[in-house]
Amino acid sequence: MRSFIEVKPDSDFPLQNLPYGVFKLKIGSAPVCGTAIGDYVIDLSVLEKKGYFAKTLLGNKKIFSQPSLNSFMGLGREAWKQVRVVLQTVLSDENPMFRDDKDLQKIAIIPMNDVVMCLPAEIGDYTDFYSSKEHATNVGTMFRGKENALMPNWLHIPIGYHGRSSSIVVSGTEIKRPKGQIKPANSENPIFSPSKLLDFELEMGFLIGPGNSLGKVIPIDNAYDHIFGMVLVNDWSARDIQTWEYQPLGPFLAKNFATSISPWVVTMEALEPFKLKGPEQYPEPLEYLNSKDDWAYDIKLDVYLKTQSENENIKISSSNFKYMYWNICQQLAHHTINGCNTRTGDMMASGTISGPTKDSYGSMLELTWRGENPIKLPCGSERKFIEDGDTITIKGYCEGNGYRVGFGEVSGKILPAI
Amino acid sequence: MRSFIEVKPDSDFPLQNLPYGVFKLKIGSAPVCGTAIGDYVIDLSVLEKKGYFAKTLLGNKKIFSQPSLNSFMGLGREAWKQVRVVLQTVLSDENPMFRDDKDLQKIAIIPMNDVVMCLPAEIGDYTDFYSSKEHATNVGTMFRGKENALMPNWLHIPIGYHGRSSSIVVSGTEIKRPKGQIKPANSENPIFSPSKLLDFELEMGFLIGPGNSLGKVIPIDNAYDHIFGMVLVNDWSARDIQTWEYQPLGPFLAKNFATSISPWVVTMEALEPFKLKGPEQYPEPLEYLNSKDDWAYDIKLDVYLKTQSENENIKISSSNFKYMYWNICQQLAHHTINGCNTRTGDMMASGTISGPTKDSYGSMLELTWRGENPIKLPCGSERKFIEDGDTITIKGYCEGNGYRVGFGEVSGKILPAI
Repeated sequence: MRSFIEVKPDSDFPLQNLPYGVFKLKIGSAPVCGTAIGDYVIDLSVLEKKGYFAKTLLGNKKIFSQPSLNSFMGLGREAWKQVRVVLQTVLSDENPMFRDDKDLQKIAIIPMNDVVMCLPAEIGDYTDFYSSKEHATNVGTMFRGKENALMPNWLHIPIGYHGRSSSIVVSGTEIKRPKGQIKPANSENPIFSPSKLLDFELEMGFLIGPGNSLGKVIPIDNAYDHIFGMVLVNDWSARDIQTWEYQPLGPFLAKNFATSISPWVVTMEALEPFKLKGPEQYPEPLEYLNSKDDWAYDIKLDVYLKTQSENENIKISSSNFKYMYWNICQQLAHHTINGCNTRTGDMMASGTISGPTKDSYGSMLELTWRGENPIKLPCGSERKFIEDGDTITIKGYCEGNGYRVGFGEVSGKILPAI
Repeated sequence: MRSFIEVKPDSDFPLQNLPYGVFKLKIGSAPVCGTAIGDYVIDLSVLEKKGYFAKTLLGNKKIFSQPSLNSFMGLGREAWKQVRVVLQTVLSDENPMFRDDKDLQKIAIIPMNDVVMCLPAEIGDYTDFYSSKEHATNVGTMFRGKENALMPNWLHIPIGYHGRSSSIVVSGTEIKRPKGQIKPANSENPIFSPSKLLDFELEMGFLIGPGNSLGKVIPIDNAYDHIFGMVLVNDWSARDIQTWEYQPLGPFLAKNFATSISPWVVTMEALEPFKLKGPEQYPEPLEYLNSKDDWAYDIKLDVYLKTQSENENIKISSSNFKYMYWNICQQLAHHTINGCNTRTGDMMASGTISGPTKDSYGSMLELTWRGENPIKLPCGSERKFIEDGDTITIKGYCEGNGYRVGFGEVSGKILPAI
């Protein structure tokens, strides 16, 4: 399966991937939907105008000329599959339709360097889970000791909480260090200060396709049909603000100053070959969480730190989405078991994805064990937490046979507090 | 100050109020914006078309023919004030413009009985605070004993968390009893069951007018200018689901199955005469929370229970918004101190508003003290928590000199679990 557009072997975006995103031209244009192939963006609004999708469930609707993927995501799996078939067909080197239409190519194929990526979706509600057993155990061990590391509910419930959707930003957005209340250990009262324990969280998130109405559950066997695709997520966290504020209602200002996501949404169809069995679950979850199929995904996840002085990406963690204890279908079934409605575009993130080994932890908090074991950098300096001018980049990809299905990256540079 | 439209002395909606809402006709029509006066709704889209607001900052824009108040709320206080002046002028019995235009009256004045009220705003993010000291103390006493009732952070931080915006519904919407995981005290493992400890929470919420961009704070002295108006809120809660799930990230499925709000947004201008000094704050809050003016409001709040068999409203609590320890300006300043952005239409709720006496508590949990002291109903039955078929109604109003500025009500009936 080859495209007539060049795709290098290590590209995240071969014909097997075809993620969706929203972009505009650097020289200025209205945002529209596109797909990525090799180093190019395909303007789907142009193909749509040309009638490429007229025979699919999209008909003659203007779905891809919109500034978000929501309309497309709301159409459901059958429409997604049909559009994927059309794209794999017309982008292949065996089909002359697009391959030989040089005029269309001029307006529909755009070098990635010429575009600015936007948020892919209008995200109504953002939920963050806490589904990595290794992460929950690490954090629990630090704060409550090894014996009480996991809360009693953790093995029964895909624990989650509501995050803030307004501050979800696209990769590349610079993030100001948050200020807030912090209580020094040696003081009775809090002080007001820029966060000194700024952290990243390596996460992934899935986007809801068709939602469910209030009062209706999404049974676990139907959950997959409500999931459109996935993105990389960095859920920035201010640990010192968090420690002081989070009792009893959970994290708030420690998290809601920014959450960065990757611009390309990789579809569940593209991820299908990389499914595998997840971790054993014991005790057995309640019936409504009993997912019969394999719902883990083998997605390699790497985290890089770039300091202002060194200006090169240093890998500080290698994790994998397959470590997740609770899978995406369990998360969605749990989220709606009380009748909570979801809407097209809602994002549900995994929580920090830590693996079993020290080099696979998904946050500075865990990698440096609260700062006790700083990360040594090549130039001799070190990091306990993130400093001003540092850039954190998360990359993710699935390794296929001779190709990879990748997510690109989510990247963000920390600016000093105002 | 009298209107040419009849307003009974005990009406919530005299000329001094003029709340905003979104309605459609029962016989069918597109939702548009209106105001309330006496027992009537004024269709503001009709007045707008007639040019009534052409001299205000609205100009000839179509602001009120939209299905939400967001566009209007985004314009800011000067525009809100100007429109209020126009409305108070043309609705008064001294001005002939509207009073003598019978043709316009026929299409612009609609009996309340003929309309269905909709959600007033597109609510992007919903934040729930926890700002009543009495409520936090009551709950803390039940769960941690009198000595440790208030968490150490409570007197320093207006504690809050993110709720779910998708499940905010307008008054009158029936609510299905949620199901979920519950851990019986005598069992090691959770069971799956309809909630047996279903509760209301008496709250109020304010809606954001102009928002702030990411990375910019709203200083406390500017907070008021970002607040459009207020609604009544019932933050339905399943106490048994909450107890099992909330550690360590806060309430989730215990709350996100439904939050009911009143349809009429009472503006801060209408509430202005009812401002008063709030509770003493000790220890003195950090500088960024130092609000110089008086920001409490004297709003009487009553909660009624109607059972299916008795079918009459029984008052079960009388509280007041003035009891709030943290005021709305402090809440908004705190929310944005880390650079978190807010958007027009965002809702920030107070948390349960309990007063100092037992008959002023804002939840069944407190009124019955976890079910230990059931509420006796006139017919001889009793309530520990809310049962199927029960309707909870919250009413709120400010008592002026010979008039009241009221909120109408937020009401919801509980249906059996599916």
